[in-house]
Amino acid sequence: MEGVDHLAFERKKAQFDVDHMKIVWCGSREEFELSDRISRLVASDPVFRKDNRAVLDRKVLFKNTLRKVAYAWKRIIELRLNEEEASKLRRFVDEPAFTDLHWGMFVPAIKGQGTDEQQQKWLSLAYKMQIIGCYAQTELGHGSNVQGLETTATFDPKTDEFIIHSPTLTSSKWWPGGLGKMSTHAVVYARLITDGQEHGVHGFIVQLRSLDDHLPLPGITIGDVGMKFGNGAYNTMDNGVLRFDHVRIPRNQMLMRVSLVTREGKYVQSSVPRQLVYGTMVYVRQAIVSDASIALSRAVCIATRYSAVRRQFGSHNGGLETQVIDYKTQQARLFPLLASAYAFRFVGEWLKWLYTDVTQRLQVSDFSTLPEAHACTAGLKSLTTSVTADGIEECRKLCGGHGYLCSSGLPELFAVYVPACTYEGDNTVLLLQVARHLVKTISQLNSGNKPVGTTAYMVRVEQLLQYHSDVEKAVDWLKPNVVLEAFEARAARMSIACAKNLSKFTNPEEGFQELSADLVEAAVAHCQLIVVSKFIEKLQQDIPGKGVKQQLEVLCSIYALFLLHKHQGEFLATGCINPKQGSLANEQLRYLYSQVRPNAIALVDAFNYTDHYLGSILGRYDGNVYPKLYEEAWKDPLNDTVVPDGFKEYVQPMLKQQLRNARL
Amino acid sequence: MEGVDHLAFERKKAQFDVDHMKIVWCGSREEFELSDRISRLVASDPVFRKDNRAVLDRKVLFKNTLRKVAYAWKRIIELRLNEEEASKLRRFVDEPAFTDLHWGMFVPAIKGQGTDEQQQKWLSLAYKMQIIGCYAQTELGHGSNVQGLETTATFDPKTDEFIIHSPTLTSSKWWPGGLGKMSTHAVVYARLITDGQEHGVHGFIVQLRSLDDHLPLPGITIGDVGMKFGNGAYNTMDNGVLRFDHVRIPRNQMLMRVSLVTREGKYVQSSVPRQLVYGTMVYVRQAIVSDASIALSRAVCIATRYSAVRRQFGSHNGGLETQVIDYKTQQARLFPLLASAYAFRFVGEWLKWLYTDVTQRLQVSDFSTLPEAHACTAGLKSLTTSVTADGIEECRKLCGGHGYLCSSGLPELFAVYVPACTYEGDNTVLLLQVARHLVKTISQLNSGNKPVGTTAYMVRVEQLLQYHSDVEKAVDWLKPNVVLEAFEARAARMSIACAKNLSKFTNPEEGFQELSADLVEAAVAHCQLIVVSKFIEKLQQDIPGKGVKQQLEVLCSIYALFLLHKHQGEFLATGCINPKQGSLANEQLRYLYSQVRPNAIALVDAFNYTDHYLGSILGRYDGNVYPKLYEEAWKDPLNDTVVPDGFKEYVQPMLKQQLRNARL
Repeated sequence: MEGVDHLAFERKKAQFDVDHMKIVWCGSREEFELSDRISRLVASDPVFRKDNRAVLDRKVLFKNTLRKVAYAWKRIIELRLNEEEASKLRRFVDEPAFTDLHWGMFVPAIKGQGTDEQQQKWLSLAYKMQIIGCYAQTELGHGSNVQGLETTATFDPKTDEFIIHSPTLTSSKWWPGGLGKMSTHAVVYARLITDGQEHGVHGFIVQLRSLDDHLPLPGITIGDVGMKFGNGAYNTMDNGVLRFDHVRIPRNQMLMRVSLVTREGKYVQSSVPRQLVYGTMVYVRQAIVSDASIALSRAVCIATRYSAVRRQFGSHNGGLETQVIDYKTQQARLFPLLASAYAFRFVGEWLKWLYTDVTQRLQVSDFSTLPEAHACTAGLKSLTTSVTADGIEECRKLCGGHGYLCSSGLPELFAVYVPACTYEGDNTVLLLQVARHLVKTISQLNSGNKPVGTTAYMVRVEQLLQYHSDVEKAVDWLKPNVVLEAFEARAARMSIACAKNLSKFTNPEEGFQELSADLVEAAVAHCQLIVVSKFIEKLQQDIPGKGVKQQLEVLCSIYALFLLHKHQGEFLATGCINPKQGSLANEQLRYLYSQVRPNAIALVDAFNYTDHYLGSILGRYDGNVYPKLYEEAWKDPLNDTVVPDGFKEYVQPMLKQQLRNARL
Repeated sequence: MEGVDHLAFERKKAQFDVDHMKIVWCGSREEFELSDRISRLVASDPVFRKDNRAVLDRKVLFKNTLRKVAYAWKRIIELRLNEEEASKLRRFVDEPAFTDLHWGMFVPAIKGQGTDEQQQKWLSLAYKMQIIGCYAQTELGHGSNVQGLETTATFDPKTDEFIIHSPTLTSSKWWPGGLGKMSTHAVVYARLITDGQEHGVHGFIVQLRSLDDHLPLPGITIGDVGMKFGNGAYNTMDNGVLRFDHVRIPRNQMLMRVSLVTREGKYVQSSVPRQLVYGTMVYVRQAIVSDASIALSRAVCIATRYSAVRRQFGSHNGGLETQVIDYKTQQARLFPLLASAYAFRFVGEWLKWLYTDVTQRLQVSDFSTLPEAHACTAGLKSLTTSVTADGIEECRKLCGGHGYLCSSGLPELFAVYVPACTYEGDNTVLLLQVARHLVKTISQLNSGNKPVGTTAYMVRVEQLLQYHSDVEKAVDWLKPNVVLEAFEARAARMSIACAKNLSKFTNPEEGFQELSADLVEAAVAHCQLIVVSKFIEKLQQDIPGKGVKQQLEVLCSIYALFLLHKHQGEFLATGCINPKQGSLANEQLRYLYSQVRPNAIALVDAFNYTDHYLGSILGRYDGNVYPKLYEEAWKDPLNDTVVPDGFKEYVQPMLKQQLRNARL
């Protein structure tokens, strides 16, 4: 059966040009060609095999990752890949490794916070991988609250050094990826103390291990934090624990771009604005949103293909059973996730623009859009990662029992993805930041402070408070403006209701605490509005390719109407729509599902993932699932022997009723 | 610090008698004492250690399980434990093993479907574990649809045997626990064929492996299906794949209680009613609901204790930071799950009564309550397992980053629990069965067919259609009848709306398909009503112990009002409540959270779980989390050596810029 495309009949149903959709998904033809080329390069190289990860024990797994990392680096050099290509290659190798932190956190931290001199020295070492760096911020007792970190960096003017120290157990650095076993250096965050005075948390470059024998330097206790969720997954990463016992580093290893300590121990702010840090944050978060669309689309691709392969019930006269993708219950769970993957893709694309915009403004010291950009990226990070984590697990369930097998790829995808809900800002904490910004925006409406960017709709607050949807027929819900206004009105009213309730408290902070669950809901409503509006904006562009735009219009409507149905309570309670209109939206949604159905396989083909990258037997491009599942089973180590190890010692005596004398 | 109770200050806050609550949780003093005794027995025995599971490779993990199983059986014999005690012991060993299927599926299948003679022969072997049995129903290509199974059992009158055969690859048995490596026998489900005629799917006892050398018998291909989701978790179980190549078994190994094949090959129904099978189904599902409350309460216990230990933000003047359990956002996510754990416990208790009731009726051939009992248990299985699976993951997220460590216990709890959403009836498929029953109940309302049991409220359909909540103040929502009526009205109206929409279709089956997503929502509303009503019924009983009943009343209100808030759209759209009343419910909910807060630790202490059973450093009874997390980290195999295996071969050359010549 090798080579037969079992899903060809599905692919023939597509009503649009898949090749054009691939380009839309990637953002440009160049981007598509780059991804396509590099993903095939990785997929065709046996060193990058990853289908055996679930059965490898921690040490073997980790060693194997080291090999892949070195080999990838070798290939990057041999093929003279540029930075973008190298980064794509690491993505498609698809295995968390210490280099992720080296390139993704250590290098950017030095770039963003180091002086020119520091950058010159350290980046040239880092770029050639003569040193390996990580980012040591969180501590055993301190996560979200960076200001609560306990590690200290005390300036000693006698020797012109900082003394890095972990004064308590809870101040042990905990979680940094790459720290546990691999990093030679770290950017360590610590409370700066000069002359008995505290100056808040700052970053310091600290060497951790000898460049000769890789042994930890004196005063440094360091190790791996232990096994994490899932088979393979993040266990290829050496998340670490680190304690400092009065470790001395030269003064010039404090990252001094924004503030510095002089030879005399004086703490001085430089002329570089602190806000630069937020620019980096916008960058990191747009990358996380983009990752969300990738992770979700992988899961959706697997679940969609397998839903077309799998059949259950509904056989007539001994014929084939019904494909599960034809069941409305399956569609109602799967297609909104498909739509979300596309929605997140486009909002991620827009965030790239936002980052450029913010950067350009920062260069001319225009900080006016920063608070809004900060809130918006915080909210979108939270929204997209939460939906993606839940969505991957939903896709797993949509595959029935077989989704529980590691060979489905979904358990590992889930386990590897879920930390995104916690790192770079816990999702609930971030939503509260969004809420704070919304409440502030509202409080300033009358002061002539015009809301900008994604909060610009608040300008029309009077109008939005008067709004009642005028939907009369189900098809009315297909009009972008109708949808957009409903989402704007709902978001505005929820924020305003919160602001009103807050004003009843004499202590605003106490009110914020007390109403925080409502505030989170208002923040989510605002973030959903952003995603809907960016999807709609995308569709206002010219999109070439037969039927491509039409498919995206269907997905955009599904995304919005699914949310409207899910959060119907908020639309109704705020009086934006009435029950009849809610029911019409639901009716339209059902119809939209039937429109997606024939295009479903093509819509996931458009992600252009190789079988290697998907890493899922259920999601195979050719749909040849069952023979391959069967084949795969026999590779489990338990099948190495017919009678398992332990049978003779433990089970035989049980069967023979000789347990009494057995040594167990 | 050993021995100090770091949560003592929390325990002192409790406003109720924890010891009495423990008894309420267990159902009776006897049940409590039994659980308490057996759980301590297991916890104190080093053989039952389970904290190392995450790092063991598959073979070592599996061998270790075999040892535990044999040792447990030895202890059961030595201590002369009765069946109930033995089953508790297996629960507290807390490791999926082939014996779960032996005792939980193989033995009950023979009890339920075997003739007296068959029971005598096979059960006496099974009870002594002279044979090991499993339950081989699902196939590679066939899960939910039992009637679609492909395995055949063809009667050969010449030899008085059945020929068991797997005609296709997709007919391979797939998933049965205990099948892969351990079972000597299986109850195999296959299509019965006699004289060229098919008679549907029946059960057959088939020997799989030799009782001498444990090798598979001729014609049998058998193995493990491979790694499953999670570290440790279900990988201690040998879920199996099995193909038959014309395997012959004697005719008397067909389970013949309900229907049989004569020596001549005639297929005959016995006088035993088929409905007996449904009695077993009610039993299995009540056990699953009871398990849900246990799994959810374990997760809630971990998250609650750690939320009291963990501090984040809000430090004033360098004092301690705020316990995260004091944040409303944490409470709004955690306390509804705490309430759900109690709610599921009580509905599980009621299901035990239902099972007894059904069994007694079956004995006198009263099948009148069977359809309702069947629908109700199907729905409750679906509802409680879905909420529990999501709830465990929510609890993990509520622990922040550390919840991602295997040592938190939550990853494994999740991975081990999620299959419950799929096995014994996929949760969506089950909800559709509930919906079918609801629609049928409604269609019969005018025919004088009085709805019974959990659908009895439908009798008052006219009244419920007129209902508008009369809540005026937030405290009105504390009245059980007010809540109950709102839930009844919402459920009834959603079912009736579905029935009305269905009547518009000329082909009812097509309508059911088309509206299935709405039907699922109606079914969920009905099931939530059942849980709410059984919680309220429980509170109408006499409950001794200072403050115990008051605490349960608070939890009951939280459970109901949380659902009301979450599904506000349905309550509003059906006109059961107005937006003002919805907002009052939310206000009341916030107040209830503050009432639970001082009792939270005591409410999870009431589950009476040992640290061994919880298996979580974050959930330790004494709250001594950080020192123990720190200690635990060093046990990871990666920490066996300072410089990890693979560094010299792969990473050193990279650092030394000698990669070009390295062999990778």
